[in-house]
Order: sequence, then structure tokens, then C-alpha cells
Amino acid sequence: MSRLYVVGIGPGAAADMTTRAAAALEEAQVIVGYGVYNDLIRPLFPDKEYLETPMRKETERCRMAIDAALSGKIVAMVCSGDAGVYGMAGLVLELAEGKAALDVKIVPGVTAALSGAALLGAPLGHDFAVISLSDLLTPWETIEKRLALAAQADFCIAIYNPSSMKRADYLQRACDILLRHASPDTICGVARSIAREGEETHVMTLKELREYKADMFTTVFVGNSQTRLIDGRMVTPRGYRDVSR
Amino acid sequence: MSRLYVVGIGPGAAADMTTRAAAALEEAQVIVGYGVYNDLIRPLFPDKEYLETPMRKETERCRMAIDAALSGKIVAMVCSGDAGVYGMAGLVLELAEGKAALDVKIVPGVTAALSGAALLGAPLGHDFAVISLSDLLTPWETIEKRLALAAQADFCIAIYNPSSMKRADYLQRACDILLRHASPDTICGVARSIAREGEETHVMTLKELREYKADMFTTVFVGNSQTRLIDGRMVTPRGYRDVSR
Repeated sequence: MSRLYVVGIGPGAAADMTTRAAAALEEAQVIVGYGVYNDLIRPLFPDKEYLETPMRKETERCRMAIDAALSGKIVAMVCSGDAGVYGMAGLVLELAEGKAALDVKIVPGVTAALSGAALLGAPLGHDFAVISLSDLLTPWETIEKRLALAAQADFCIAIYNPSSMKRADYLQRACDILLRHASPDTICGVARSIAREGEETHVMTLKELREYKADMFTTVFVGNSQTRLIDGRMVTPRGYRDVSR
Repeated sequence: MSRLYVVGIGPGAAADMTTRAAAALEEAQVIVGYGVYNDLIRPLFPDKEYLETPMRKETERCRMAIDAALSGKIVAMVCSGDAGVYGMAGLVLELAEGKAALDVKIVPGVTAALSGAALLGAPLGHDFAVISLSDLLTPWETIEKRLALAAQADFCIAIYNPSSMKRADYLQRACDILLRHASPDTICGVARSIAREGEETHVMTLKELREYKADMFTTVFVGNSQTRLIDGRMVTPRGYRDVSR
């Protein structure tokens, strides 16, 4: 049986990786990933064979991992954050369909919604939604609809991929949709370069978030109607009844 | 400066804990938690002082942790899964408000939405919502509204606390709401006792989920309109455009 791990390594590399993830990388002979993630892993596991493809070549990268595993090597494909949340786990399973000789194991990891939240305080302390603003694989109309319904549901929202070169105004457009249903004073936060050099966080209102220049290393957090600032941190209470007294 | 860590230990204990979480527990002199979590941690860190309160006494437990930290001890409060997602991080920050002598650090962990998803395949491969069915702190009407809007948004949904002794029919009621907006054939899954003895998963349709008897150790996953079964696993593609060819 060929073995292929799809491993979520967490936000940075070493400190936020689980024991299970580290064990899978240790067991692997070949590590497959996007270049930046491979560079994070290499110092920890220097003696592995590393394979990579450029960004956006995800299908090729998954095929490369599957082929390496089917050739008899133990393979680990690394994903930043979690293996499944906007990660490669689904694509690997799609491409491995019907390959009975291949044992695919998914190893979860701390996704940016969780690691960014911890830096900001506890913004996701109640029901929440996770939405990517990337319209590469999803029509923008679907993304708009989800933002509107998430705001109507009073979900806390973690926003992935808030911006890129080609989509410089997407966060602003997203805020305009949220502002139709949520107060401009809604507490929001951003976490940038989580667990990496230059890590930073900022808290602000939804009105201010509209003017914030996010980049591709930023994860955005929009509070619900109950979210408040406590000693500079963003906190969403666990419910609508006050249990702290 | 008094130090209080709020630590997400992941679903089980050892294997799914991050290096950062293990380091916080190692540094701590006192570990505070719900009895079941303390019992998971104790074999790993036998030489610590352990404090606990019964279930539902969360406010007391947080106060106990804050008081122990203010008395000069390094304290770690443990949460199953993540520290923030339905965890104690928010409540600790609320209760610690204005206590400038207290340095609260939040350490994220792998929440059940991620660990359960990994066991089932990749159900959360696209935008998703996390909703708790517990109406202890949230009016049931709010929960109903969120379920309806999440289904209308075509979010994948991870459902926490799907059932308890007093709320035996809540999952059924939730499914009835989802069925107004989603196909009865929507692919769903459940993960039970994740990373603990008796761990099990099942995949089924939304129609079948309505009849499933969940317990308090179960996390439920409802797919979106694109979710499909691949070799027995629940997979949500990364978008609406086919990129696997």
C-alpha cells in the first residue's frame, strides 16, 4: 500500500505544528509543497527529498505527490495552516479517486482563522463563517451572496485571501456588502504574517477596515454584533446571555 | 507580570497538540481545566498542580485560573480543541479585563471542525460555517436563523453540540431547517470521539442525518451543493470550476 500524507503544518512551521504532523513529515521520504512552505520545513527535516511546483499549479503538485507515492515512496504533501481548509486534501482525494493502491491520510493543522484569532484575542468565540475572497475558482456573485448572508446571520467572519495584485479593491467591496447589514462600528481585526517574521495585528471598526490595505499575507476578522474590545483585544462572547457576572 | 496561558490541546491530547501548546503546559506550574481534559493531560505532565471545576462552571473555572496566576504561579487553562472556538479564551479575557498585572496568552489548537473533517476526508474544502446547537447561551431562534442562512449561502457547515440529554431532537430540528434550502441528498458526515477511544466516522445523506442519533461526543458535517463522495470519503471541491482535469 502506497502512503500519501496531506499535512497541515499550521501558520509558521515548527511551533504550531502538531505532533501528528511532525511525525508524518519524519516518516516521509519525499516532501511535496509550494516553494515557500518547503522552505519553512526544510530546516526541520533537511534530509528529505523535496518536490515543488509554482503557485497555482496545484493540480500538477498533487499529481506529483500521488505519482511519487505510487512509485513506492512515503510522501507528505504540506499545506500552510490546515490540510483541508482551502488546502490540498480535497484535490488530492479527487485526483486519487479509484486508486486502490494509495492510502491517503489527512493530518489536520491550525488554520489561519484559529492562529490569527489567538493573536487578536478571541474573535471566533461564537458561531462563525470562513469565506475566501479569491474568485479564481468561485464566481464573485457567490462570494457576495455569502458575505451578505453571513452578515445577516450575525456570524463572526474570518476572511481569507482578502487581496492580491489583481484584486486590490476586493476587501473594500466585501466591506460595502457587510455594511448593508452590520454596524460601521462592528469590531474587526487583521492578522498579518502569522507566526512568521513581521507578524502584526491591528484592531479597528468595520468602517476603518473598508479603508485598510490588506495584502495576500493578511487574514481578516469581522466581529458579530456582540464583539467588543477588551484591553485592546477583540473578544466575541460565547453567547447572547451574560455569563461573566 | 503574572502569566496565564489559555491552551487549545486539540481533539485527543498528545498527538494533536502543537509544539507551542505542549511548551505552555510544560512551563506552567498549575493546570486548570474541566476534569475530562485534565485527565487527558495528566499522564503527559504528571508533576503539575491540577485544578478543576465541574462542567458548566466555566466562570468559576476561569476565575480560579486568573486567581492562581495573580498569586504568582504560571498557569495554563486547557480547552479541548481550540482555545477560542467555543473555548475559554473569550471568557478569560472578559474576566481579566483591567487586570494590568496579568499577561494572558492564547495558544490555538486543532478544533473539532478540522480534526473531524480530516477523518471524513475534506468536507470543509470551501467556504464554511461553524454553528453550535447548544441553546444554553444563545436563543434557539438565533440558531435556527443561522442554519437557514448558512444553507442559503451554500456553506459547508460544521455543527458542534448537536445533541444532549435535554436536547435529544435538536439535530433533527436543525436538519428540517436545512432541508428547506438544501437537497435531501446533500452529502453529510459525522465524527465521534475524535482521537479518543471509540473514534468513528460515518457518511450519509442529509435525509439520513435527520434520523441519526448524535450524542455530545459527535461533530456533524453538512456538505454544500458540490460536496461528493469519493471512495467513501466526503469531499468538497475548492470551488465551482473543475480544476482537477
